[in-house]
Amino acid sequence: MIRANENFTKLKASYLFADIAKKVNEYQKKKPDADVIRLGIGDVTKALAPAVIAGFEEGVRQMAKDATFRGYGPEQGYEFLRKAIADHDFRARGADISADEIFVSDGAKCDTGNFQELFAQDIKIAIPDPVYPVYLDTNVMAGRTGNFRDGRYEGIVYLDCVKEKNFMPDLPEEDVDLIYLCFPNNPTGATATKEELGKWVDYARQTKALILFDAAYESYIRDESLPRTIYEIPGARDVAVEFRSFSKTAGFTGTRCGFTVVPETCMVYNSDGEKISLHDLWTRRQSTKFNGVSYPVQKAAHAVYSPEGKIQIKQQIAYYLNNADIIRKTIESLGFDYAGGENSPYIWVDTRDMDSWELFDLLLTRASVVCTPGEGFGRCGRNFIRLSAFNDLEKVTLAMERLKEALQ
Amino acid sequence: MIRANENFTKLKASYLFADIAKKVNEYQKKKPDADVIRLGIGDVTKALAPAVIAGFEEGVRQMAKDATFRGYGPEQGYEFLRKAIADHDFRARGADISADEIFVSDGAKCDTGNFQELFAQDIKIAIPDPVYPVYLDTNVMAGRTGNFRDGRYEGIVYLDCVKEKNFMPDLPEEDVDLIYLCFPNNPTGATATKEELGKWVDYARQTKALILFDAAYESYIRDESLPRTIYEIPGARDVAVEFRSFSKTAGFTGTRCGFTVVPETCMVYNSDGEKISLHDLWTRRQSTKFNGVSYPVQKAAHAVYSPEGKIQIKQQIAYYLNNADIIRKTIESLGFDYAGGENSPYIWVDTRDMDSWELFDLLLTRASVVCTPGEGFGRCGRNFIRLSAFNDLEKVTLAMERLKEALQ
Repeated sequence: MIRANENFTKLKASYLFADIAKKVNEYQKKKPDADVIRLGIGDVTKALAPAVIAGFEEGVRQMAKDATFRGYGPEQGYEFLRKAIADHDFRARGADISADEIFVSDGAKCDTGNFQELFAQDIKIAIPDPVYPVYLDTNVMAGRTGNFRDGRYEGIVYLDCVKEKNFMPDLPEEDVDLIYLCFPNNPTGATATKEELGKWVDYARQTKALILFDAAYESYIRDESLPRTIYEIPGARDVAVEFRSFSKTAGFTGTRCGFTVVPETCMVYNSDGEKISLHDLWTRRQSTKFNGVSYPVQKAAHAVYSPEGKIQIKQQIAYYLNNADIIRKTIESLGFDYAGGENSPYIWVDTRDMDSWELFDLLLTRASVVCTPGEGFGRCGRNFIRLSAFNDLEKVTLAMERLKEALQ
Repeated sequence: MIRANENFTKLKASYLFADIAKKVNEYQKKKPDADVIRLGIGDVTKALAPAVIAGFEEGVRQMAKDATFRGYGPEQGYEFLRKAIADHDFRARGADISADEIFVSDGAKCDTGNFQELFAQDIKIAIPDPVYPVYLDTNVMAGRTGNFRDGRYEGIVYLDCVKEKNFMPDLPEEDVDLIYLCFPNNPTGATATKEELGKWVDYARQTKALILFDAAYESYIRDESLPRTIYEIPGARDVAVEFRSFSKTAGFTGTRCGFTVVPETCMVYNSDGEKISLHDLWTRRQSTKFNGVSYPVQKAAHAVYSPEGKIQIKQQIAYYLNNADIIRKTIESLGFDYAGGENSPYIWVDTRDMDSWELFDLLLTRASVVCTPGEGFGRCGRNFIRLSAFNDLEKVTLAMERLKEALQ
């Protein structure tokens, strides 16, 4: 008899964004004329930049002729892309990362979800609350937690991110082996200074813990004093893996490309305490279960680093950050407290003790605006909603007008 | 202290095709002038068909304008593609599969590797020998086996596929819960009749086992009496999952698209013997860890089913099958026994008791021809090599001439 992985039954009934989609669909069925504006899931709306399209098209053209056709590529990604990433995203900022330490993938969701496969079953895991749900859910599915009780899984060390501490987590009180961090944070928009990140790197070095650092939103950092990668912190390359994505940087949510940095100096341990190369483990995982990213997509991603590409991408990010400014001003004028939106595309709004799904329903039914209920990101998000700057300027402006009417 | 998943250390030192690549690189360094012909990894060489390129380009063009831009798509794939697949690959052959039972992915390697996540840790697994290594390796990494001894992992039920039985496995003698099958087989090229597949479907229905059926090479079946999908067998939709790929069907090895069929009637069980929908489990897995396939790639895949696409794809497959015929005739003329090549792009050559790596080395050094040593597919492959028909006609012809010189 074929038995199921029963850890799946520990998961809450469905994935957050699927729940939201269902509610929105129901609302639209009831009110087919409502012009719903989505500031929920955080999906980009602007076309791919011209330079990116040119790279993409060149890749497709090469696939059209036997002489330039590409079959299986390297599982880690083509060197032309890995080298551009290492040079522009890391070396240019003084972070010592080489092309061989980059693993190109079809997106950070897959990588952040799959990476836990490399670790022992009984490690102690620290996860911020609130945060992107994939870190937690994939560890639940892998059987590293107990049951879900009172909004939390048994066996996980939650790192509370609360308003009183600017949504920055404290170091855990008990020893942990694996730490997920995400800055600029999804959903709170909080950013970490070099000093704050340094505290985590020191902790990991002292305790032989590993940091999984999700930097999917780094390109939204305006404050030049803030680190864009954890490898700006001395010593980080021995204790940290970094996840990156072209989704929000260059509008690749539907094009699918991201990458993970696994430095060659990053070590994990066997039960005898002997060192094992994490780079080797991830190489093995990827070459066994993955076959690389579509060649034309890698060409498109490569164009992000061309001179024109860099300018065009910057303009796109500025466009969304302008939306974020408009949202922040509106939220402020309505007298709500909020975080984020300055170095992040997300604005994290304090609901003033209202349940987050309640405010979600209210915004949907009164303003036809979709937000993300904070509870979906963890218990500490119960009294917050997330608003996303990823939409067209006109729609964001209209949504804010409707919010003013609905909430004033 | 962050501890590794030590199951990884049970794996043989490296992935088969990485080993081969290493040997070929070393040879090329020693003999830089050697014109190496690769009949090893089974990678296509012909350009994408014009209809596929047109679909791909249309997808890219749509990404270039805000009005037609696509962000996150459905994790399961766009309905336009799922519907075309269900209609052309299944309903047209009388197999009752609907669009909602199709899950589009970035390739069968990922799906065949990831699917085991849905099952309990202590299930009994049957795997053919020889076969595509991913089924076994991913279960090793997940901790479902003991150590590797004398060419086999403890705890796995191996289904021997031997020459005397036309490389068809017998039903296992002990009860098993999960059965991997692959027809047309990689590497042996063996195909299964409806009657033979029916035997496995009956077994699974009687014992509540599940079949994971890899049909990545179905488009190479010339014999119209053979089933192209397991769902041509009555009752299969309750006990079988099918993996498919555009890689060999339409030259997508570097473009990346495949799909998995999980019928809604397919059930697994919890430890109390209660039914759980496998379709629900895979939906959850994919929506948590995967973000769908690149939109332009889905447009390219969709074009495979257009009237022109179907004709062009058929021509490509005929081209590679003609190569297979040339290889078969040469092997036959050299007096070697072989299987496959008739309804499969692979020719499985009996080495006449020579070790498969030995013949690999011999062909590489004497003929500059790369094959795949059968041992890489399992112990039963020790005295076989696999030759692939995926190359240009001129190169295949030249390779066969060199083989004649080297082996006569």
